[in-house]
Amino acid sequence: MDLSGANLIGGSREAGTGPSFRAVDPATGDALAPVFHDADLAQTDRAAVAAGLAFRRFAGCPATTRAEFLRAIADELEGTTGTLVPRAQAETGLPQMRIENELKRTTGQLLLFARLVEEGSWVDARIDRADPTRTPAPRPELRRMLQPIGPVAVFGASNFPLAFSVAGGDTASALAAGCPVVVKAHPAHPGTSEIAGFAVARAARRAGLPEGVLNLLHGSNPDVGLSLVRHPAVAAVGFTGSLTAGRALFDAAAAREIPIPVFAEMGSLNPLFLLPGAVAARGALLAQGAAAAVTLGVGQFCTKPGLIILEGGQPARDFLGALASALHATPAGTMLTARITDCYHAGLERAREVLGVQSLTTGTKPTAATRTTAATRAGSALLATDAQTFLHTPQLSEEIFGPTVLAVLCRDRLIWNGYPPGVEVSPAMHHGGPYPATTDARFTSVGTAAIQRFARPICFQDFPEEALPPELQAANPRGILRLVDGLPTRDPR
Amino acid sequence: MDLSGANLIGGSREAGTGPSFRAVDPATGDALAPVFHDADLAQTDRAAVAAGLAFRRFAGCPATTRAEFLRAIADELEGTTGTLVPRAQAETGLPQMRIENELKRTTGQLLLFARLVEEGSWVDARIDRADPTRTPAPRPELRRMLQPIGPVAVFGASNFPLAFSVAGGDTASALAAGCPVVVKAHPAHPGTSEIAGFAVARAARRAGLPEGVLNLLHGSNPDVGLSLVRHPAVAAVGFTGSLTAGRALFDAAAAREIPIPVFAEMGSLNPLFLLPGAVAARGALLAQGAAAAVTLGVGQFCTKPGLIILEGGQPARDFLGALASALHATPAGTMLTARITDCYHAGLERAREVLGVQSLTTGTKPTAATRTTAATRAGSALLATDAQTFLHTPQLSEEIFGPTVLAVLCRDRLIWNGYPPGVEVSPAMHHGGPYPATTDARFTSVGTAAIQRFARPICFQDFPEEALPPELQAANPRGILRLVDGLPTRDPR
Repeated sequence: MDLSGANLIGGSREAGTGPSFRAVDPATGDALAPVFHDADLAQTDRAAVAAGLAFRRFAGCPATTRAEFLRAIADELEGTTGTLVPRAQAETGLPQMRIENELKRTTGQLLLFARLVEEGSWVDARIDRADPTRTPAPRPELRRMLQPIGPVAVFGASNFPLAFSVAGGDTASALAAGCPVVVKAHPAHPGTSEIAGFAVARAARRAGLPEGVLNLLHGSNPDVGLSLVRHPAVAAVGFTGSLTAGRALFDAAAAREIPIPVFAEMGSLNPLFLLPGAVAARGALLAQGAAAAVTLGVGQFCTKPGLIILEGGQPARDFLGALASALHATPAGTMLTARITDCYHAGLERAREVLGVQSLTTGTKPTAATRTTAATRAGSALLATDAQTFLHTPQLSEEIFGPTVLAVLCRDRLIWNGYPPGVEVSPAMHHGGPYPATTDARFTSVGTAAIQRFARPICFQDFPEEALPPELQAANPRGILRLVDGLPTRDPR
Repeated sequence: MDLSGANLIGGSREAGTGPSFRAVDPATGDALAPVFHDADLAQTDRAAVAAGLAFRRFAGCPATTRAEFLRAIADELEGTTGTLVPRAQAETGLPQMRIENELKRTTGQLLLFARLVEEGSWVDARIDRADPTRTPAPRPELRRMLQPIGPVAVFGASNFPLAFSVAGGDTASALAAGCPVVVKAHPAHPGTSEIAGFAVARAARRAGLPEGVLNLLHGSNPDVGLSLVRHPAVAAVGFTGSLTAGRALFDAAAAREIPIPVFAEMGSLNPLFLLPGAVAARGALLAQGAAAAVTLGVGQFCTKPGLIILEGGQPARDFLGALASALHATPAGTMLTARITDCYHAGLERAREVLGVQSLTTGTKPTAATRTTAATRAGSALLATDAQTFLHTPQLSEEIFGPTVLAVLCRDRLIWNGYPPGVEVSPAMHHGGPYPATTDARFTSVGTAAIQRFARPICFQDFPEEALPPELQAANPRGILRLVDGLPTRDPR
């Protein structure tokens, strides 16, 4: 597949006219073809308008069409495996097996959302029956359900080129809800984004949907994304990335004449609490598990454990010794970009300069197996401090994105017998936490509950049957679970 | 009952030290005893801290205790009817029957939320079972439910001294969710607020709850409310009032280091669409209904119809003639405050100055029955314009709070055979709409779904049974509806 370097706007390829950039292979430092250009303001506007126009038709189409569309996307993505996987590898430095598993997760979550919208109960249908005899005033009939919120701006994440980018979780949940999407591709993997974006476009054609249902914009500068978030046609934002970038989008959205919700997932510290009994009984095993969790994907997961809280003493010293050895034995890895690598090293440097923080490893030595340029090479690091220093140094509560963890030794003192960063894509998952982990901890960015971000309730009062959506009709033709007079049932009403 | 004029902070009465103010009887213009003082910064801080301390205990208490507390509040409020109703009448100018019905609605919604938390399924419990045999990685067990978000700042509304003030809908849903509340009393009805606030405090003692579970602050200046919204202990905001005040709170919350959600309900235009067949067949009846809806409560409902869209022609002219007569025949009323009355008259004046807007009534003449001072006396008004003028004059889309409606005559053209402003308090109600009706149209401020504003999901991975909340335990001891592997059931898991 030849890459065009173009944006995708209302179904048409359009080369950008802004500053040019190219993807870089982080393992070699080589720039990759083709040249991409930032979308200009007019193109950003046209993409948002195209999504707005598509919204009218897409929001009204039956759940079966949406499910068919989601399945077609999964199918088209699978069909591109041969080009998608090597390009994603080249653009991210992530291993082939990781990319292949991420593709499976991406298609898996599309199919999960297809089943969710087919089953239909996610719309939280509620029906309060009329009571014409009630005093002092008769009670009207009310029927309420969730409906799509409008076009969603989705920002591709650097660390998930597939599962949280063009056809990833934000897009899957927005499309499932009935919202067209404008994706701002991450500039570190524009080629991967193009392949995925055009796969979605083909799926839209297969499902007979308007072409503006998915639009793709390239941009190496923040302006493209900010213009998108400020566009009046955009109704919500999904973002995964840094606190700085996420907060800038949140602030722009809050300052709009009509504010819109921003679901920004910005990573967090993910503390592990190790209780004394466990450290004494199986410290060596815990150290192996912790080292694996800290270095998985070169520490580039938002759920990487960033803190280990444990009680000081000999067992803790033994544990930290074992953890330091295990980290030292892990080969240095290739980070996603040179900039992320610089931030990692700068973050480590700042932490090490804090009085009371000890460096327990000096960084992994690159092995012969690590054929990575210095610009993106990162070894793991173990830092340690005491509870007082930690509590009095807010800087130590800031995430360092990369393969490092800070041990905090305290005098006395919950994941239960497990380590992040594994995150299931399922109904009960909640991926999000107090700010700055997310801008709104009431919503998840992973799992089927993610659909709730992109829907809003609409209540119909005393409407005739034929003017109601199927989910709220008396006969319950979709057979969904509904709250009737406050009680859940699939019975007709 | 003697009013103290004091704030209620962590269960203690504390006189404010800021600027003084008194309530005013809008019918007579007389200032009412006692003198109230704005809470100072230290008091605002102590109230928020008291709510934060109460949160730890209140969030953890069983659902039955919360339900008992809500029932005790309803009971205490009923016990104060003899003082509460006349004071609310004096402070708002609203008729006795309206206040009595509002008290019934207030106690009714407290009981509704008591039943909701007793039944328990509102927590949206979701359980994904483990699969240790799954490849490439075993599937962990996940259990997720909604938990209270933290202390909530509630702003009393001018137009609902009971149902949307100290013990009103925002407070009821926050307490039901498990969130302590700091109420900023509306300065137009501080006495009503004191009576209700101390009733809640007595109910808290009866239920054995910490005294900081409800705190009451007085304030005639915006500073008190803004300090509260900026306080780090406050986790969410409920507000009903003007666009200006609501937006100021929203902006303050969005500018915090840790942003928090603001559920501001700021009124809207509530258009009625009258189809030609209906106008021709029963125009006179529709005019009577519309006049009643526009003038109910002197037009001081956020759901008052503010626009009537209909096709021009003789039937429309007849309808507008009948509507003008019906409005003219409605006696002038007493608005809530002199300031609201000034805003109403200024809004009417601005609309009448728009080229293309006609005034079809010159305002109701006060009748002998209207013994209201000029400062708060308001007659109804009917304005009319054409579709082109309406579409090209954004100002005409701004709400005018009071007994007026703008008819828009168009060439061709949904509430279905009904009028606002009736709003049920029930599971299917959705009270909220696109900005500026609300700052977040995904949530309702009326009905049981209002509880969702004040809760956030927590997900437990591989936790032992004894460390799980009852809602997520395998045996399902509360018997609630849960989503198990994506399917709703009350079965144990």
